[in-house]
Amino acid sequence: ADIVVLPGDGIGPEIVAATLPVLEAVASRYGHAFSFAEHDIGGVAIDRHGEPLPAATLEAARRADAVLLGAVGGPKWSDPNAKVRPEQGLLAIRKALGLFANLRPVRPHAAALGASPIKSELLQGVDIMVVRELTGGIYFGDKTRSETEATDLCRYSVVEIERVVRSAAALARARRGHLTSVDKANVLETSRLWRDVTTRVMRDEFPDVTLEHQLVDSMAMHLLSKPRAYDVIVTENMFGDILTDEASMLAGSLGLLASASLGSGKVGIYEPIHGSAPDIAGKGIANPYATILSAAMLLRHSLGLEAEAAAVEAAVSSALDAKVFTADLAAAGQGVDTRTAAQAVV
Amino acid sequence: ADIVVLPGDGIGPEIVAATLPVLEAVASRYGHAFSFAEHDIGGVAIDRHGEPLPAATLEAARRADAVLLGAVGGPKWSDPNAKVRPEQGLLAIRKALGLFANLRPVRPHAAALGASPIKSELLQGVDIMVVRELTGGIYFGDKTRSETEATDLCRYSVVEIERVVRSAAALARARRGHLTSVDKANVLETSRLWRDVTTRVMRDEFPDVTLEHQLVDSMAMHLLSKPRAYDVIVTENMFGDILTDEASMLAGSLGLLASASLGSGKVGIYEPIHGSAPDIAGKGIANPYATILSAAMLLRHSLGLEAEAAAVEAAVSSALDAKVFTADLAAAGQGVDTRTAAQAVV
Ligand SMILES: CC(C)[C@H](C(=O)O)[C@@H](O)C(=O)O
Ligand SMILES: CC(C)[C@H](C(=O)O)[C@@H](O)C(=O)O
Repeated sequence: ADIVVLPGDGIGPEIVAATLPVLEAVASRYGHAFSFAEHDIGGVAIDRHGEPLPAATLEAARRADAVLLGAVGGPKWSDPNAKVRPEQGLLAIRKALGLFANLRPVRPHAAALGASPIKSELLQGVDIMVVRELTGGIYFGDKTRSETEATDLCRYSVVEIERVVRSAAALARARRGHLTSVDKANVLETSRLWRDVTTRVMRDEFPDVTLEHQLVDSMAMHLLSKPRAYDVIVTENMFGDILTDEASMLAGSLGLLASASLGSGKVGIYEPIHGSAPDIAGKGIANPYATILSAAMLLRHSLGLEAEAAAVEAAVSSALDAKVFTADLAAAGQGVDTRTAAQAVV
Repeated sequence: ADIVVLPGDGIGPEIVAATLPVLEAVASRYGHAFSFAEHDIGGVAIDRHGEPLPAATLEAARRADAVLLGAVGGPKWSDPNAKVRPEQGLLAIRKALGLFANLRPVRPHAAALGASPIKSELLQGVDIMVVRELTGGIYFGDKTRSETEATDLCRYSVVEIERVVRSAAALARARRGHLTSVDKANVLETSRLWRDVTTRVMRDEFPDVTLEHQLVDSMAMHLLSKPRAYDVIVTENMFGDILTDEASMLAGSLGLLASASLGSGKVGIYEPIHGSAPDIAGKGIANPYATILSAAMLLRHSLGLEAEAAAVEAAVSSALDAKVFTADLAAAGQGVDTRTAAQAVV
């Protein structure tokens, strides 16, 4: 399988470098051949090529079986009014590859509960899959700016809603059979369309999956007060951005959360949900588990290697059980380095 | 002082009825004269007058010194595609009175910490004031709907941003001198304008108040992981809606959170941030504290009665210290009724 590797900025190169040996171990243990081709994206691509998503990167990603990404952005390129910004590379590659469904599983690991701000007794048994719509909504609508005002347009089409709801419902069917759709239908027209389309798709195509609608503001509460009540959550781009970062707190550390961005084809982008963490970049102390768990999702969703994916997930669990913790999870002043944590998984 | 009372729907009438005796006690104790005029808003107004904000209600509110509101909405009027909906009344009165700054204080009370999903040690000393922009953004932009798609426009003007940032900064100056502005400037044009205007207003007019920018997704995490780090938070309408409901979890119960919606005039709307709770409506068990604390904000912000406001807040604190808890705060199966809790405050 051909895997395109996009280390990006900040801690991106470190966590990706720590993850490749895990994929190599899978290849040799299970008799697969993986080839890795590295390309630039984000700030590093701006520095080297003048643009956050060079054509060569996009072309390679299009031809690959899967893309493993580190993180983009950093203080060097952080002026929000700059013409080219690292984040544009990320948004552009998601859009260009048609990756409309962003899967973000949240399953707190027993050994990491201490690091969560949430009371541990609420977290036992939590197993949520958030499916965030990734190529529509206000992120990609027309923008205007004048001396006196600015605008952003939020647009959703029936087709965009149908396809992400189908992805989420299919996941729910293979899990506990419950889907929670999140919108702001009491205020937004796009949310009323979202609710109508979701209701119809679920009634016609997934009568065996229970459907519940939640308003985004209530959801921001319930996610904390009764996280066990949720199975699969589906929502639009911006709400998904906010709710998944909030949900990450259930898992103890952002350093444990993986994601997969999928479309209708086979190629997907796999990346940790955390950012480039410029404050600790270059120190070799970043938590590699989220990237390794993203690689597990890559094995599962793009390569169809379920047993291999499960083995990687089990290995991360064992490392956590053995308290192989990087600084974000360990007691203050303690913690192993990135390589040691990744080596424990290998 | 003339106070317009809008009980609204669900538990609204009960919690407002429980709060008026508190204001009457203040009037008699401190020698003030308060008159109360009741009007319809929300679902009850749709039923009686065919519209969620009757002209008589708006006129009365315009002439009043302050408005005390219960809650609007309920299953009877909950079809999001209905032509008239209770929420429209709330949005319309906020807009018509020009109430652009929605103040939502979050100060967990020691006796209620047990009810919060957040670990108690993180909550000690938390004292946050969220200022949510209330009459702009995607809530009030043009909306379209066709067979195949829907749109909502998010618009912010320089003037709209300036005035709410000034309100928030003035509050920060009178508190701990720190302002956190929340946006999504790495993606949205309205957020880039928000960041630019905020930076300029703070540099030119509030050099003594420290300013920090946060992205809304990160903020959804930090609010949980380090709530003590925040003093005043200012943000746009939709982000404020989501973040304040999330922040309510810090306080243990939504039943403890008050709000004030202020404009450039004296009149303001004071309402609990919780909704109409149709599931417990009519049972007399709703928590009245959030409405009583909203009445305290009314005394402070619209009537300029600081000592009276502080006395009401102290009385609620004492009731909580004495564990006079309604069902939302009490152990399962326990809790006093609405009147008993309110009477403890009186
Ligand atoms: C970097 C940013 C554009 C991105 C997003 O908001 O989609 C990030 O926050 C994420 O969630 O992947
Ligand atoms: C009822 C709804 C329109 C309202 C809002 O979103 O503003 C409510 O959630 C609130 O926060 O006051």
